[in-house]
Amino acid sequence: MKRIFEVDPWHVVSHELVPADKRLQESMTSIGNGYMGMRGMFEEHYSGDTLKGIYIGGVWYPDKTRVGWWKNGYPDYFGKVVNAVNFIKVNLTIDGDQVDLAKDNISDFTLDLDMQTGILRRAFTVTKGAKQVRFVIDRFVSGAQKELFDVHYQVHNLGADPVQIGFISQIDADVFNEDANYDEQFWQVLSKSHALSGGSMVAETKPNAFGTPRFTLGMQMMHQTDFEAVAAPETDKAVTNIFRGTLAPDERTTFEKRVVVVTSRDYDDEPALRGALASLSETISQQAYADLRQAHVDVWHQRWQLADVVIDGDAAAQQGIRFNLFQLFSTYYGEDKRLNLGPKGFTGEKYGGATYWDTEAFGVPFYLSLADPQVTENLLEYRYNQLAGAFHNAKQQGLAGALFPMVTFNGIECHNEWEITFEEIHRNGSIAYAIFNYTRYTSDETYLKTKGIDVLTAISRFWADRVHFSQRKQQYMIHGVTGPNEYENNVNNNWYTNLMARWTLKYTLASLQKVSAAKREDLAISDEECAHWQDIVDRMYFPHDDKLGIFIQNDTFLDKDLKPVSSIPANQRPINQHWSWDHILRSPYIKQADVLQGIYYFMDRFTPEQKRANFDFYEPLTVHESSLSPAVHAVLAADLHKEDKAVEMYERTARLDLDNYNNDTVDGLHITSMTGSWLAIVQGFAGMRVHDDTLAFAPFVPKAWQHYQFHVNFRGRLLKVDVDQQGTTVTLVSGDPLAIELNQQRVDLATSVTSQN
Amino acid sequence: MKRIFEVDPWHVVSHELVPADKRLQESMTSIGNGYMGMRGMFEEHYSGDTLKGIYIGGVWYPDKTRVGWWKNGYPDYFGKVVNAVNFIKVNLTIDGDQVDLAKDNISDFTLDLDMQTGILRRAFTVTKGAKQVRFVIDRFVSGAQKELFDVHYQVHNLGADPVQIGFISQIDADVFNEDANYDEQFWQVLSKSHALSGGSMVAETKPNAFGTPRFTLGMQMMHQTDFEAVAAPETDKAVTNIFRGTLAPDERTTFEKRVVVVTSRDYDDEPALRGALASLSETISQQAYADLRQAHVDVWHQRWQLADVVIDGDAAAQQGIRFNLFQLFSTYYGEDKRLNLGPKGFTGEKYGGATYWDTEAFGVPFYLSLADPQVTENLLEYRYNQLAGAFHNAKQQGLAGALFPMVTFNGIECHNEWEITFEEIHRNGSIAYAIFNYTRYTSDETYLKTKGIDVLTAISRFWADRVHFSQRKQQYMIHGVTGPNEYENNVNNNWYTNLMARWTLKYTLASLQKVSAAKREDLAISDEECAHWQDIVDRMYFPHDDKLGIFIQNDTFLDKDLKPVSSIPANQRPINQHWSWDHILRSPYIKQADVLQGIYYFMDRFTPEQKRANFDFYEPLTVHESSLSPAVHAVLAADLHKEDKAVEMYERTARLDLDNYNNDTVDGLHITSMTGSWLAIVQGFAGMRVHDDTLAFAPFVPKAWQHYQFHVNFRGRLLKVDVDQQGTTVTLVSGDPLAIELNQQRVDLATSVTSQN
Repeated sequence: MKRIFEVDPWHVVSHELVPADKRLQESMTSIGNGYMGMRGMFEEHYSGDTLKGIYIGGVWYPDKTRVGWWKNGYPDYFGKVVNAVNFIKVNLTIDGDQVDLAKDNISDFTLDLDMQTGILRRAFTVTKGAKQVRFVIDRFVSGAQKELFDVHYQVHNLGADPVQIGFISQIDADVFNEDANYDEQFWQVLSKSHALSGGSMVAETKPNAFGTPRFTLGMQMMHQTDFEAVAAPETDKAVTNIFRGTLAPDERTTFEKRVVVVTSRDYDDEPALRGALASLSETISQQAYADLRQAHVDVWHQRWQLADVVIDGDAAAQQGIRFNLFQLFSTYYGEDKRLNLGPKGFTGEKYGGATYWDTEAFGVPFYLSLADPQVTENLLEYRYNQLAGAFHNAKQQGLAGALFPMVTFNGIECHNEWEITFEEIHRNGSIAYAIFNYTRYTSDETYLKTKGIDVLTAISRFWADRVHFSQRKQQYMIHGVTGPNEYENNVNNNWYTNLMARWTLKYTLASLQKVSAAKREDLAISDEECAHWQDIVDRMYFPHDDKLGIFIQNDTFLDKDLKPVSSIPANQRPINQHWSWDHILRSPYIKQADVLQGIYYFMDRFTPEQKRANFDFYEPLTVHESSLSPAVHAVLAADLHKEDKAVEMYERTARLDLDNYNNDTVDGLHITSMTGSWLAIVQGFAGMRVHDDTLAFAPFVPKAWQHYQFHVNFRGRLLKVDVDQQGTTVTLVSGDPLAIELNQQRVDLATSVTSQN
Repeated sequence: MKRIFEVDPWHVVSHELVPADKRLQESMTSIGNGYMGMRGMFEEHYSGDTLKGIYIGGVWYPDKTRVGWWKNGYPDYFGKVVNAVNFIKVNLTIDGDQVDLAKDNISDFTLDLDMQTGILRRAFTVTKGAKQVRFVIDRFVSGAQKELFDVHYQVHNLGADPVQIGFISQIDADVFNEDANYDEQFWQVLSKSHALSGGSMVAETKPNAFGTPRFTLGMQMMHQTDFEAVAAPETDKAVTNIFRGTLAPDERTTFEKRVVVVTSRDYDDEPALRGALASLSETISQQAYADLRQAHVDVWHQRWQLADVVIDGDAAAQQGIRFNLFQLFSTYYGEDKRLNLGPKGFTGEKYGGATYWDTEAFGVPFYLSLADPQVTENLLEYRYNQLAGAFHNAKQQGLAGALFPMVTFNGIECHNEWEITFEEIHRNGSIAYAIFNYTRYTSDETYLKTKGIDVLTAISRFWADRVHFSQRKQQYMIHGVTGPNEYENNVNNNWYTNLMARWTLKYTLASLQKVSAAKREDLAISDEECAHWQDIVDRMYFPHDDKLGIFIQNDTFLDKDLKPVSSIPANQRPINQHWSWDHILRSPYIKQADVLQGIYYFMDRFTPEQKRANFDFYEPLTVHESSLSPAVHAVLAADLHKEDKAVEMYERTARLDLDNYNNDTVDGLHITSMTGSWLAIVQGFAGMRVHDDTLAFAPFVPKAWQHYQFHVNFRGRLLKVDVDQQGTTVTLVSGDPLAIELNQQRVDLATSVTSQN
């Protein structure tokens, strides 16, 4: 754990520039608007260690994976987010000397992400001998106008003499990905244009050998300043504008850089892209800074009105939940159904921009409650629209039906570890589960009957082909899988995977009863196929131990050397940074909830005794080195009235990045797992469920808290839930009256009801 | 199966140049002398598909392995053999036109590897309009002078007019590895020198990031010809000599290129290398071609006298066994104890030059019988000398003792699939077994007591740390391994691995009784440690099925869908070229003997019933897609008097490459598995064993054969064994009288004894 920012309800703020923590600071001060985003790297020259990253949603490159040990069925390429052309760059000079924030004498430093407004402010004073200049710099990517990046400088001469200040503003295509194999670059400059006070560039990703699309980026920079524009040198990869002016003692000025960024994803061809770039730039250039800024702030204001969570009595928790909501909304707010929720969002290269099963497992319940149902439907349709890729993936393995990818940009699997790609097929279960979850929450079966059923049928066909029948046991089995616990792999009969496979088949069979005959015909469903699926449902094998009263994670798990996590010396945690992969694989330690993930999905189908026995067995073996893990444990612990354990688990998820719990936030934020802290509060502490078509709550308040409040959308209503040590108040903020269940009691909600906890 | 060469007892010969089979032809006509070798690529320009490969023993490059998914304990680099500077190159011109064997009109083509002499001959007639020239070209790498490569041209003008012939001879560093990641090149030219009739180059492998040694190659080319040397252009990466002359109709001439190749492996520094290159070249330049050639032929003559196997009645089998012996001796004849037996020898890049467990499992018994004991001791010492690397490898996994590498040049693991590197730890067992095998065969315990015990102790310490104790079963287990059957991986309790671990501990405990107290002290062996090892020996878990009467390959093997190999459609074989890796891993099909490998090692410790039950269970599930597999089955089948099955298995190993059984000989030959055909004849058909310190035979003759004959060395004696349909004759060719066991009868061998089969 490492806390480098101050605790504050609405700000992520630090007053120190610590070079050793620079990457961590950058991760934590990332901003984004769903369309694009960037790490909290400086616009200005910084010669110290830094991880520069600007990312555009859906812009990626297929890197080669064919290596010596390539085997049939391995993906052809590894998809990676491309670090975009650096269009934010602004170097500063003071009397001609370049400011280097890593080396210059810097004082009164502030780095402040305002989560309420989505504006990142930096402020610092540079002292060079007798010269002293203060800079206050605000940056945002507009929530109102997705193509707009804006950075605004206030400059103040604090010295006794006049100083000349220079702004060297660039669009620079000389960028690298840190994870490039051989330091290759991905951008080719197509054209540049250059005026004294502005400039533009059109650049394209380099060709690839796999026939996946190339992407074109058009960028126009504009500057608002009283300083004089001076001629700048031409270089191959950059467009540069230089502005200089002199400030008298105590004089102030401002400098603003606006960049409009368009991509070929939104335009039919290059002329259209160039036309849009010009007209958007024209429109934006005519607006006042204050208006552009206000429009952006207003968007964030609306989001917070719908989704804010208030915690009284625990300032760190308050900051944690808001940080998570802020970063999630910065990554995805449902505007573009071709995009999805990447595990690192716009905050780092790792997993960057690609889609994982995290979306269905952790993103869907979050957006279901906090945004219009259309946002969630967009997430579901993302998979529907990628069915062709999923058929391809299954076929690559020689299997029927659809295997949705572990990692993808376009539906085709683009990761390249066989133990993940081939074996973590449980993801297919979560993609089916999301359809069920959406339908249960909204009570709207339209999507299920029109598109969802195609996805369910395709996944069921995969499962039916992927199981095999064991003559010896006379049961169906699934060999060679990796469960959610990636600290084991290539195991047989992972209980969770078997559960999800059987459940999908069962749910698909039931759903097929609801669809039209025409749809069934379209899907070419035969009675024989249904009968075979039913046979698998009836005779699926599940490893379990009657003596312990538990489900077994996989066939041979109980043969391991079963010592609890508490027996691992503290200096060997996290184990993935201290132990060899071999050691980890053979250990009993669980990276993230596996059996418990299955119980979490189907909470009301297991008895309290089953839940308790499994929780008590698996929780002590779990190291939670996946950021997705603690939330599931928090919800289950709350369900089992283990309130202290629920709070402990919540705390790990709530400030995972703010406190750098897993010591890997330098690489970027754990965006998808940020939903976990919200789930822990709402499904955990407040016990929210949909029981038999009814929304239910059974809240408690963590001992250290006085009160918490959150909002949820449910079937056209906006509910506000307030929980304090005395009881719970549920307020119907808008929408028709609704019957809910509060602490096991049915209550009719006209406006607001209160119940004692 | 694809047979592109003619069947001939001493020649691998074809009269067709088939472009589609070029790579296959090249693999099959590889030559080598232990020090260096090359594929049967042409010296001349060939614009068609070809895999050029010249390899120098022990010259390699550590390529990067750090990729996105790198995890603790993964090797830092992947070692690869470097394709050497192309020093054999000779382009031909006819009246100034370059000859291109892929495009020109070629007739009367012959490609002929003479295995008796180790000379590769090519002959062809080039017709260009009315011009017609015949070339007969002999190539060898000298068995008598390891540094010498020689190619000799006979040229004959068959046309009606005079023609000008040109020889453009080069040493060319512009070479690639096909398996390079980004087409990078590995050689940097340090210097070139150039005279009209000869030239030299010194080149070095490029720097690497891992601190492994760089290698320098010094090459001097000399030419014997009546043609005129003419000035050649200078280029950066090549040294060139050009010779031209005119042949009248029916006139003949010769042209010879000699290249002396020295490496930094043999010299302290670069001046020493340069000095050696000069003086060796001087010496060699003074010798006549006929003498150089005869010295080389004599070496092969001596080898065949000791090791030839004669088969009467089956010309294909005769050719097969000689081809295998020829290629094995070309790869390794024990001259340099820093070298070992690479799975592809000097015939391809794949596995190229690196050492695998094949050496101990399949190479050691072969060299024990066919070469001086010192050759085998060199192979054992190779591992002893690499103990430091093996300790390093274990430590990387967080384990005690020594883990010998799966793949190495220097003792450090240099492969990069975790499922092989971490998991195929059974290799450690074979390395221990080789010490036992050598000691049993030679009856000489000196090596065991002085060096072998160090290796055994280090391996035992690894096993003792790698097992874990299962509380549930109250037995020791080994989880997370890959057995010899690489078509499953990350399995628990691979019977073979558990067997080898327990056996090593037991053999080490017994051997420690034989060594001096000083040695035990050196090794820091305590009574507690021995007691712990004994406990593991006593309580090791072995999966077995009493009903089937078999040992189980691993914990859950019997849950698979157990259908025999015969149920796989023919067009899906070999499965590794038709099925996804996922499909293969989940199938019951065995790449190579696994349980049977263990039974083979300890043949006399299992009952005939055990052997039969396991053979009958596993053999039908085995696809033999490792070239190491059939030999073990042949020996076991012979032991079980399944003579037809033994012959069937022998046939797969005997002509694996000649008939391209596994459809992968284009990559190079399966050198280490070539021992298999010899093992199948000698341990299989002839039933050779060392029983209770006595050499034993129990021969039969395959139905299709009339007679076979082989030689073995045993404890200072050379024995000749002749087997025909009537009986067996064992002749003591040299050495003291010896008592052997022939068909279960003890016989005293003064000169020769005969027994009916």
